[in-house]
Amino acid sequence: MDRFEEKTLTSTTLYEGKVISLRVEEVELPDGKWAKRELVDHPGAVAILPITNDGKIVFVEQYRKALNRSLVEIPAGKIEPGESKEITAIRELEEETGYRSDQFTYLQSFATSPGFANEIIHLYIARGLEKVEKPAEGDEDEFIHLIECTIEEAEQMLVDERIYDAKTAFAVLFAKNLLKQ
Amino acid sequence: MDRFEEKTLTSTTLYEGKVISLRVEEVELPDGKWAKRELVDHPGAVAILPITNDGKIVFVEQYRKALNRSLVEIPAGKIEPGESKEITAIRELEEETGYRSDQFTYLQSFATSPGFANEIIHLYIARGLEKVEKPAEGDEDEFIHLIECTIEEAEQMLVDERIYDAKTAFAVLFAKNLLKQ
Repeated sequence: MDRFEEKTLTSTTLYEGKVISLRVEEVELPDGKWAKRELVDHPGAVAILPITNDGKIVFVEQYRKALNRSLVEIPAGKIEPGESKEITAIRELEEETGYRSDQFTYLQSFATSPGFANEIIHLYIARGLEKVEKPAEGDEDEFIHLIECTIEEAEQMLVDERIYDAKTAFAVLFAKNLLKQ
Repeated sequence: MDRFEEKTLTSTTLYEGKVISLRVEEVELPDGKWAKRELVDHPGAVAILPITNDGKIVFVEQYRKALNRSLVEIPAGKIEPGESKEITAIRELEEETGYRSDQFTYLQSFATSPGFANEIIHLYIARGLEKVEKPAEGDEDEFIHLIECTIEEAEQMLVDERIYDAKTAFAVLFAKNLLKQ
């Protein structure tokens, strides 16, 4: 697992924020030379591909300041300190969509930007969705619009770039294989 | 495209690095309240899904300091200033794999971490690969091990988490649909 390992020589934290932190490290390369690595620390996140009983996918549309536009994404959220991934999945699904599920299936984990960040997203499928009467509320700085659509409509949103992030692109491809079999 | 738009009130650059920069912004939310956004600027990247004439996929294994492990990924690299995406694709394919192609097909673009970064990856398929006798060399701090394998072997690497990043997971799913049709 550690081909071409880079040894940390110095590590300097330049910023500690609410969501991310920034570290700059000097590393020793396999040939003995030094290089600088700029690294973003992130607590990790869980994303959920929610599939309704009639085979539709539940998405959330929200504004993403980093891109200065809104995106249609599968529900997702940061893992809170001390929280298990399964609890994050249940919590975020309810907060963002108002749905509860007792049928979560773990699908895949992936690093989003391995060149500079340690963020890992853990992806689950949720089936057997039921609407909650008074769902738990999410972060007060999150404004979310709910979209439920067929896999064909989701594929069109990917072509139109309304869906435009890697985890959701992966989820749509996966759902296509799952729902069109 | 701008549902729930967040207006920038203040923007402070905290770090300007070689690969990424860090900005903190205060924004006005749709309900008039303020929130803080921690944003990483990245120049964007191109990734290539290279498929050989005998239907194998070309991967590169490299150490990723952010994750303290090596990953098997499709070839990819940052867009250099003034460079078109197509030129980045041709350059990175040759530097990282020693292959040239005159059959690039644009596939998809996606944001990797829309919650905190503006990095966009533009994904191409490359076919008609030919080995270059003396390929252009890449960054001197990059150490790369080449892997050519079947789609079945790639799927197994995804299960085993040797493949563990979102762009490569997406590419493997896409290649599966393409090569198994």
